Amino acid sequence: MSDFPDTMQAAILVHDGYAPTATGPVIDDAADWLQAVEIPVPQPGAGQVLIRMRASSVNPSDLHFIKGEYGQPRVKDHPAGFEGCGDVVATGAGAEQLAGQRVAFVAAGSGAWAEYVVTPALMCIPLRPDVSDFDGAAQIVNPLTAMAMVDIAKQAGEAFIISAATSQLGKLMCALGRDLGLSPIALVRRADAVDQLKALGAAEVLVTSDAGFTDRLAEVMRALKPRIFLDAVADQQCETIFTAMPNGARWIIYGKLSTEPPALTQTGQLIFMGKRIEGFWLTQWMTSTPPQDQMRVVGEVQARFADGRWSTDVAATIPLRDLVATLAETLKTTKGKVMIVPE
Amino acid sequence: MSDFPDTMQAAILVHDGYAPTATGPVIDDAADWLQAVEIPVPQPGAGQVLIRMRASSVNPSDLHFIKGEYGQPRVKDHPAGFEGCGDVVATGAGAEQLAGQRVAFVAAGSGAWAEYVVTPALMCIPLRPDVSDFDGAAQIVNPLTAMAMVDIAKQAGEAFIISAATSQLGKLMCALGRDLGLSPIALVRRADAVDQLKALGAAEVLVTSDAGFTDRLAEVMRALKPRIFLDAVADQQCETIFTAMPNGARWIIYGKLSTEPPALTQTGQLIFMGKRIEGFWLTQWMTSTPPQDQMRVVGEVQARFADGRWSTDVAATIPLRDLVATLAETLKTTKGKVMIVPE
Repeated sequence: MSDFPDTMQAAILVHDGYAPTATGPVIDDAADWLQAVEIPVPQPGAGQVLIRMRASSVNPSDLHFIKGEYGQPRVKDHPAGFEGCGDVVATGAGAEQLAGQRVAFVAAGSGAWAEYVVTPALMCIPLRPDVSDFDGAAQIVNPLTAMAMVDIAKQAGEAFIISAATSQLGKLMCALGRDLGLSPIALVRRADAVDQLKALGAAEVLVTSDAGFTDRLAEVMRALKPRIFLDAVADQQCETIFTAMPNGARWIIYGKLSTEPPALTQTGQLIFMGKRIEGFWLTQWMTSTPPQDQMRVVGEVQARFADGRWSTDVAATIPLRDLVATLAETLKTTKGKVMIVPE
Repeated sequence: MSDFPDTMQAAILVHDGYAPTATGPVIDDAADWLQAVEIPVPQPGAGQVLIRMRASSVNPSDLHFIKGEYGQPRVKDHPAGFEGCGDVVATGAGAEQLAGQRVAFVAAGSGAWAEYVVTPALMCIPLRPDVSDFDGAAQIVNPLTAMAMVDIAKQAGEAFIISAATSQLGKLMCALGRDLGLSPIALVRRADAVDQLKALGAAEVLVTSDAGFTDRLAEVMRALKPRIFLDAVADQQCETIFTAMPNGARWIIYGKLSTEPPALTQTGQLIFMGKRIEGFWLTQWMTSTPPQDQMRVVGEVQARFADGRWSTDVAATIPLRDLVATLAETLKTTKGKVMIVPE
């Protein structure tokens, strides 16, 4: 086993549980939510590994989470941070096969914004040597999510629908869909996004604010018969889209950009048309998808980073010790990914 | 092949499609919805069989359907009737194995309220000799539905929830649940139904109109951890129940007794807790469930009718030629099942 110290630098949560607010992924001052401290290095339990962090990324879901506006409760005094890249320096029982490996990981034990992280082996992906640390640290939350969802769509048919298609994830899924020979149908709010999404790979782009939206929707449903709706919005219009889809359609909700609770106006669609409503969460996917399916999807993601089709546009790096002091300002003044590094 | 005539008696639909009403399974005069006529005997296509009817049953769903208030559109001039028992007298290509057999069937080609019926072979269940024609004619819509849904519950865990538990289907599912060693949790509107359902097999009975309902619900969820909610109501309170269920819960809607469209107030439950919302329709189950699973479930139903644990309480029989004239009056003056016979 590698040598490592008893204590470490970390940015820990200062609040517990959920907040009643829904103010989105922006912060004025990270010190409202985080504290820079020296805490004991955590111990890996059974099935877990201890990782020495090389780089951790800052995703919108991290900001949702530290503010208590994400679907998982905060635990006070635990490090924040969902995603990173690092070296496995200790393993719990049953996780020995990862010893010494460089991995991309989702932090599901302690947070990634720390020098050392504990997470289940199931949440780690061994990295090819030709994938950089930064690409490794930003390879799961967006790219693997996009690939895993498009893989679900692919298994169900050729066409699929994407809401909030101008988001980073939406754009990734449009491009991936075309790469895999599928027909992504992109939903956008404004007409000025249509050309960009068509260029990226969307087979059709529907503007949800258009007067003729319902007619266009019906027309596209008839022509392309999408079976999967990958939805980050979940408002009443999304229910309308779901009811316009053909028999056997699945409404897969992975985000909730709208605060409107959608009403189920046509339960007969569930009963007689074999439709269903479900969710997608990468953490769940990583623990429940058969290993061979995961490996196929993970392999496709790594190949894209290794051969340069994808790369992480790093706008700024912040040393971990400066994170709480400088994160808000860095986010305000940069576009692209912010990376946290140990030193 | 058997000998059969060119034309037959039938009660055909006088309206097309859906009605905008929701007036429930009661009729004043069957002639508002049906007409007694002599029409050509239908021909079985590929995968279909022609059945000479021995007995057909009258279910609440038949009344919903003829009024245009069921989830399937009416087709004018086609016979009504969802369920019956009879002899296969002709077979289409690929359905030869059913030739000459006495079967229980769901009518998915032409209706069961006719001397002859065409339906897919997949919608037929060959009957054991020790199951009577009347038990055969009433064995699918309620008993097989109950058994199929309880089988889904059994595969997911020990406890399951049933709404509208005082319905015939609800009571069947309570009894079946106990028979199979499961813990049915029955939801009822009025406290006076509690004792009956406990006697039938419910492990817990929750009265939805009680002031303390929410607390009792939380308590029972903690104690029994039901994973399946078999729901015929689908109102907002059902959504509350779904959100109170543990991780991985499935809300399976098979009916819509309420006119209230339930709003999804907690999409995070779908995303982070692996819950999902789906429907159940026996016709779909019969065409999509692997044969060995169907056979197991069908076998259990037939065994119950054969050994007398279950029997069909026939309150009245109506000859097919008198159906339109006498159905409404017969339904008003009897309790129990009304059967239609050829003569």
